[in-house]
Amino acid sequence: MQSDDKSGKLSVVGIGPGGMAQMTGRAVEAIREAEYVVGNAFYLDQIAPLLPGKQVVRSSMGREVDRAKACIDLARDHRVVMVSGGDPGIYGMASIVLEVLDRAGETVDYEVVPGVTASCAGASLLGSPLSGDHVTLSLSDLLTPWEEIEHRLDLAFQMGVPVVLYNPKSHGRPENLGRALAIAARHLPPETPVGLVRNAYREGQETATTTLGALAEDDAAVDMRTAVFIGGKETFRMKDGGMLTPRGYGRKYVY
Amino acid sequence: MQSDDKSGKLSVVGIGPGGMAQMTGRAVEAIREAEYVVGNAFYLDQIAPLLPGKQVVRSSMGREVDRAKACIDLARDHRVVMVSGGDPGIYGMASIVLEVLDRAGETVDYEVVPGVTASCAGASLLGSPLSGDHVTLSLSDLLTPWEEIEHRLDLAFQMGVPVVLYNPKSHGRPENLGRALAIAARHLPPETPVGLVRNAYREGQETATTTLGALAEDDAAVDMRTAVFIGGKETFRMKDGGMLTPRGYGRKYVY
Repeated sequence: MQSDDKSGKLSVVGIGPGGMAQMTGRAVEAIREAEYVVGNAFYLDQIAPLLPGKQVVRSSMGREVDRAKACIDLARDHRVVMVSGGDPGIYGMASIVLEVLDRAGETVDYEVVPGVTASCAGASLLGSPLSGDHVTLSLSDLLTPWEEIEHRLDLAFQMGVPVVLYNPKSHGRPENLGRALAIAARHLPPETPVGLVRNAYREGQETATTTLGALAEDDAAVDMRTAVFIGGKETFRMKDGGMLTPRGYGRKYVY
Repeated sequence: MQSDDKSGKLSVVGIGPGGMAQMTGRAVEAIREAEYVVGNAFYLDQIAPLLPGKQVVRSSMGREVDRAKACIDLARDHRVVMVSGGDPGIYGMASIVLEVLDRAGETVDYEVVPGVTASCAGASLLGSPLSGDHVTLSLSDLLTPWEEIEHRLDLAFQMGVPVVLYNPKSHGRPENLGRALAIAARHLPPETPVGLVRNAYREGQETATTTLGALAEDDAAVDMRTAVFIGGKETFRMKDGGMLTPRGYGRKYVY
């Protein structure tokens, strides 16, 4: 959106859930064009075939502001790609880069390259658990106060639509998921289907389907890297084990 | 998820917002492998370079159940791709295919190939309007009763997070958007930023940023193909005109 006469550019690139096959053509191209590729090791490893010949800057989790500043500085005179897992605009790097840029009043040519977000990737492995209207929430209270998260959860489950939970267990806060499930139980029956997806399209991919009641009793299968899909009022289990939220064709058509 | 000994397969493929550069590698590959490619003309035109040598079945909007049945029949003995705009699991073709399959008790090998959904595509052109927690709703009352949509809208805007509206004006129901904005106005101030994206990554791409109050007064710029991004409590306009929902780094770090 911003542009000037300098030759540098900052591309915040969504690489999707993992694996080069899940990247868009534009994401691959942006990395091919880059001199510098910046990201944390977990994501850089997934695009390793694209990195030979690049200046690769490996960063750590939790240093997002410093990373954003460094990328902006570099991007004045260089083509820089900042790698983001999934889609950069959903729990990714776009917001922090733009926030730092805007606060500093900087002018750097930039673009956000969208990718397949974790809710779409995970859903595709479960059947069609979202299908239409849905809510996307993170249980991480690193950046959002827990009271605010609880307020959002309560309203989300009242909607009766599927809810995707990212970061279901924060570091040092293993009880967040249990609290969220207790809020869900106020509004949804215990037999509500729940899908779990870990490492979608990556090594170690695992999917499972359970119920709200069963997961509330034992959530040991869920860790930081699991996306939790809590069904809505109409979600059901398919005969093949998949999870499906119908879109209302059954109400409209006889078939 | 299902599989049997037959050679056929049904791939429900998300082609992203439009333009081959926004498709994933796996989506391109699935189409290359297909004998039959089924979809409506609007989406097939976007992947025209992949279609030579394929049996192409052009279908019309509003015949989703028939199309799903025909694809399932074909997929017993053939490699069939059903094309879906954006991501097939979000207002796409995955749910209807799986619903028909499940009701009929059919066994056909199938896969859902995720894509870049319209909320991610549109967001990337506005800045970072979603960034984290958000709600995705459609204003189309073809499949969901309007009272139910109003109930969801009221809860969504109470959450104070960004809300993306798909299908903001249904055929024959141009007033749906105005009603939704009136519900938003109960919970959000009139200066709340609103982003509009039409034809993201397609010919005729247009973006605009306005406010809740201004759009409520005049929504002529919005049509069926526009995605409407209504900001949350923390969303603001960037100095460069972009729309940004910060993720809370400002609360956590001094910078």
